[in-house]
Amino acid sequence: MIQIGVVGGTGYTGIELLRLLAGHPEVSLSVITSRSEAGTAVADLFPSLRGHVDLVFSAPDRDALSTCDVVFFATPNGTAMNTAPDLLKAGIRVIDLAADFRLKDVRVWEEWYGMPHAAPELAEEAVYGLPEVNRAAIRDARLVANPGCYPTAVQLGFLPLVTEGVVDPDRLIADAKSGVSGAGRKASTGTLLCEAGESLKAYAVPGHRHLPEIVQGLGAACGHPVGLTFVPHLVPMIRGIHATLYASIRDESVNLRELYESRYQHEPFVDILPAGSHPETRSVKGTNICRIAIHRPRGAATIVVLSVIDNLTKGAAAQAVQNMNIMLGLREETGIDQVALVP
Amino acid sequence: MIQIGVVGGTGYTGIELLRLLAGHPEVSLSVITSRSEAGTAVADLFPSLRGHVDLVFSAPDRDALSTCDVVFFATPNGTAMNTAPDLLKAGIRVIDLAADFRLKDVRVWEEWYGMPHAAPELAEEAVYGLPEVNRAAIRDARLVANPGCYPTAVQLGFLPLVTEGVVDPDRLIADAKSGVSGAGRKASTGTLLCEAGESLKAYAVPGHRHLPEIVQGLGAACGHPVGLTFVPHLVPMIRGIHATLYASIRDESVNLRELYESRYQHEPFVDILPAGSHPETRSVKGTNICRIAIHRPRGAATIVVLSVIDNLTKGAAAQAVQNMNIMLGLREETGIDQVALVP
Amino acid sequence: MIQIGVVGGTGYTGIELLRLLAGHPEVSLSVITSRSEAGTAVADLFPSLRGHVDLVFSAPDRDALSTCDVVFFATPNGTAMNTAPDLLKAGIRVIDLAADFRLKDVRVWEEWYGMPHAAPELAEEAVYGLPEVNRAAIRDARLVANPGCYPTAVQLGFLPLVTEGVVDPDRLIADAKSGVSGAGRKASTGTLLCEAGESLKAYAVPGHRHLPEIVQGLGAACGHPVGLTFVPHLVPMIRGIHATLYASIRDESVNLRELYESRYQHEPFVDILPAGSHPETRSVKGTNICRIAIHRPRGAATIVVLSVIDNLTKGAAAQAVQNMNIMLGLREETGIDQVALVP
Amino acid sequence: MIQIGVVGGTGYTGIELLRLLAGHPEVSLSVITSRSEAGTAVADLFPSLRGHVDLVFSAPDRDALSTCDVVFFATPNGTAMNTAPDLLKAGIRVIDLAADFRLKDVRVWEEWYGMPHAAPELAEEAVYGLPEVNRAAIRDARLVANPGCYPTAVQLGFLPLVTEGVVDPDRLIADAKSGVSGAGRKASTGTLLCEAGESLKAYAVPGHRHLPEIVQGLGAACGHPVGLTFVPHLVPMIRGIHATLYASIRDESVNLRELYESRYQHEPFVDILPAGSHPETRSVKGTNICRIAIHRPRGAATIVVLSVIDNLTKGAAAQAVQNMNIMLGLREETGIDQVALVP
Repeated sequence: MIQIGVVGGTGYTGIELLRLLAGHPEVSLSVITSRSEAGTAVADLFPSLRGHVDLVFSAPDRDALSTCDVVFFATPNGTAMNTAPDLLKAGIRVIDLAADFRLKDVRVWEEWYGMPHAAPELAEEAVYGLPEVNRAAIRDARLVANPGCYPTAVQLGFLPLVTEGVVDPDRLIADAKSGVSGAGRKASTGTLLCEAGESLKAYAVPGHRHLPEIVQGLGAACGHPVGLTFVPHLVPMIRGIHATLYASIRDESVNLRELYESRYQHEPFVDILPAGSHPETRSVKGTNICRIAIHRPRGAATIVVLSVIDNLTKGAAAQAVQNMNIMLGLREETGIDQVALVP
Repeated sequence: MIQIGVVGGTGYTGIELLRLLAGHPEVSLSVITSRSEAGTAVADLFPSLRGHVDLVFSAPDRDALSTCDVVFFATPNGTAMNTAPDLLKAGIRVIDLAADFRLKDVRVWEEWYGMPHAAPELAEEAVYGLPEVNRAAIRDARLVANPGCYPTAVQLGFLPLVTEGVVDPDRLIADAKSGVSGAGRKASTGTLLCEAGESLKAYAVPGHRHLPEIVQGLGAACGHPVGLTFVPHLVPMIRGIHATLYASIRDESVNLRELYESRYQHEPFVDILPAGSHPETRSVKGTNICRIAIHRPRGAATIVVLSVIDNLTKGAAAQAVQNMNIMLGLREETGIDQVALVP
Repeated sequence: MIQIGVVGGTGYTGIELLRLLAGHPEVSLSVITSRSEAGTAVADLFPSLRGHVDLVFSAPDRDALSTCDVVFFATPNGTAMNTAPDLLKAGIRVIDLAADFRLKDVRVWEEWYGMPHAAPELAEEAVYGLPEVNRAAIRDARLVANPGCYPTAVQLGFLPLVTEGVVDPDRLIADAKSGVSGAGRKASTGTLLCEAGESLKAYAVPGHRHLPEIVQGLGAACGHPVGLTFVPHLVPMIRGIHATLYASIRDESVNLRELYESRYQHEPFVDILPAGSHPETRSVKGTNICRIAIHRPRGAATIVVLSVIDNLTKGAAAQAVQNMNIMLGLREETGIDQVALVP
Repeated sequence: MIQIGVVGGTGYTGIELLRLLAGHPEVSLSVITSRSEAGTAVADLFPSLRGHVDLVFSAPDRDALSTCDVVFFATPNGTAMNTAPDLLKAGIRVIDLAADFRLKDVRVWEEWYGMPHAAPELAEEAVYGLPEVNRAAIRDARLVANPGCYPTAVQLGFLPLVTEGVVDPDRLIADAKSGVSGAGRKASTGTLLCEAGESLKAYAVPGHRHLPEIVQGLGAACGHPVGLTFVPHLVPMIRGIHATLYASIRDESVNLRELYESRYQHEPFVDILPAGSHPETRSVKGTNICRIAIHRPRGAATIVVLSVIDNLTKGAAAQAVQNMNIMLGLREETGIDQVALVP
């Protein structure tokens, strides 16, 4: 069995990763570290894992991790860039679910994340782990930067349009709505049930950290910079992202549905819906699927793309497992082919 | 006391209207009709009204209504246009909370609502009841067409920009999110807690009935047709609309906040928020307030306006009471100056 | 592969059954019938099943079902008792998720369900499918009556106390709380998000159909009639039952935790929690687990047992699959050993 | 106008108190203190109060408070007992919404609240502010101890039975369910939307601080100690308490509904529902009403009483205003006669 380590498994991406790895037939969880919970049984912190995970959180320790084949970082931003280098030197493959290695331009990273980057050369080496774009490179990567949740939904929704030059790349709009789990498990007033429940708001309109990540990906896809307005919203639900994407058509000759079906025809985790569909976020709850519908309301110039994922699954933990499967040469769906939990 | 009749008080706009009228110091509820609930005490159907409303639903009956000074229609579309003419002839003033008299172009109405219009001449006479636009005309109106919920939030958000020609009127985008009460109290699978809960979806992307209403209002404001992409979404909460509005700036000389503050400086129910704000829908829950914030992310060409209302209150019942107050020469805030229920 | 038929797969127990059977490695779904949805692709009605279930609903038809090894009824009460007899004659094994065969006393059944029973002899033959009580009989059964959701949570919680005579069996109290999915997927005003959301109420206090089922099970366990007060409540969430059980101790010599651990030590799906625990319903979401905690507050005479299940899973579909596994000699956990989806 | 001070207005009882006081016609808010938010405009912290409250939080300061006629404490437990004595000496009347003065037996208080009591003589003097029991004493009180939320719902539900000796007072059971706002506005993991949402659990089964308060009140009502099992539950909603009360009948001669109607016939805020009713918590949302239904299922010995309140309103802030109205000789309903916000 392949030996797996998880650094920092106490947040929502951590517990989601444990859920998926516990049911993965080809791997064995051997180490889970947490500075704050060292000594606590994982199943005491997360009773939903009783009977499935019998590990105890250990203090972060490179020796313990050195027996692993793959190590996932489910840590806050700024952690993996300090610890990953040693693991890589020891020949361990690393998948970072945080943002440390997502941006190629380290200055841009430092501006948005407000700290100096500790391993700029690794930011350059790291492969951005969006399999629908970088599958071949992921296969050979030592270090994978797992994409952010919004960037996954927005890029998968825009890519066919932008890559093929079908729309004006200077005036893209992404109006994105996320469940509250995207804000993490840390105690905070703003995400209390009584603050975030029964209400909706936009946030970070002046600028959100996922903006440069999306712009980097779409720019690479079309070969020149793109202009994007990105407005995230907090929705009173636990899981799910719905990205509503707007773009102005510039090439009328293209059949939009065929464009999308062709682009994603071999992708096991992208589902292009029939014409006229409106995907619900719950239809992908707990799964690695991205469902997409394309509209052109009343034949006008504005194309509307609807793209939904589960922010903790395709938007974080399951995509990380998908990357691991690719890196290890396993069947890509292994351990992440669950049916959504509906209702 | 002014005598009030309500036709069709069994839906959500009906119960909201009863809540507000029950606490209004200048009016007296004298008749409530419902075909399906005739004979039932209002407080048996809605126990929240126990001790506040002791009327019994009566069968629709013009004689009973003829003693009223003002009659509200809280009925499905297509009802008021058949009954209102007789009431108006009897000298009763009418406020329709449904869509029967909202569109001036009856052919457009018939196309979107799928039935012939029974009173085209009244559609022409009716005053569109958005006080921030039509206060003077409302004062003298016999018949007020109370605006739809989305149209209220979207128009109040766009009006200053569009009226003053600050943005390109051909490429307006309104991404709107609504609580489930907007879909009404009728039994339906799609709005069950287990279907609409913990999920979000867009709907009616090809075309929603509120589109022609918004386009009519904005077109009148700027004196020529506007191009609007309107995408409504269903949000897992009970009340609230959040409209996120996108427009391309065309006149760089304008101070956006000053534009909005100036436009709404005398409006008791429009609140322009400080720079950098993100209004929450709950901040207006149960109130007649529309709160608006204006952003221009990263100085780019796209302006983002955030506009929130309570769909049942400013988006329906309280705006109807506001119209009544104006029609009757009462202080405009009478009976609708509640503080939002937070949390 | 074992061939499976599902009669009536359009409700919540139906879709949950399809979710589980789609991932079950030893069975193949061959027929799904629905009178109302005949001709519709299952995945069109339930997009969450896209890529997992490619069957089309067919009209109810005994010939089609006759090729199955096992047929599940996920139909309203009163359906299986009419159709199951023919299937049984054809040698097909039947599991009914409705109530038709749960009560041994047909007159009691007729009183609570308000119709004559069409197959009294089958009510006698049917095995009540609570594996923790009837595993051996289930193995050989032709017809299994799958337990109700409340009866599963309440019986598993009370059984050790009642069987061993530890408490006064005349004064049992079960205060049960259920998510709204227990009320089914049928359009109804009372279960709209705007009616059942942000509120809690008791219902059916004078008498609920699950009362005689629980009383039958507990009475059989202790060998004489029991007295039970059963009060169900509707909770603003989708899935989950929390039964809070009260009983007066009568035998002080027993160690309560040991009693429960001993009773359930070989049960794969009953989890007795450490002393002082308070199980959350979400800890079993989407799983076949029942988690139980036992308390004796302040050493007084009243024992408090907390028992949680997912009403659609252990309370319906997964328990039906557990019964199928037992009937077919498969490993009991096959296809129903998922980890709960948290958060 | 009567001058009002609020100490500690940043929690949920604080904002609810501000909502009610802002609309109260006979009082004027003159001071609001908060150590942590001194200098912040109240409406910046709580935008729902924009246009209704234009005060700025000030640092706690006895001089500022000394101009008030009445001061409310909406502070954590242990604060009022240190500050109230000086205010009382200055002739100011005090209403404490925390627990400092609720228990007459200071040793019991110190045991449950885990700190020495700073003003035992005031604990003795304070009047327990349940108007339905202590109206006359409240009228003349200098210091009112506003009841806890659970104790309000449980005592109002049990009082008629216990006072009249209708039930066995040694075996009372209160199974109570509360919305999450009862846990306050402090950042904490357990009350995050993603932790408390879509789940239900019991908590504090071994012992909750409201137990001695309820026992004190019921014991006083019947003249001897009572035995109570009290199990609170956390419900995934914002507001509302539903207490389900169980007691064994001992006097068969009493008409239960008449008993309740007679006991509460002059109470403006207790509503006894028709036979067979099941009150919903939302029917009292934002109001000072307690609605009660009485059942005796299947004629057995166990009586079931259903009692609902809004934990922040009748369970905290509005009851405090009710007490203030009584103390000041105002009409008792002044400022707290709102209609519930439904849906």
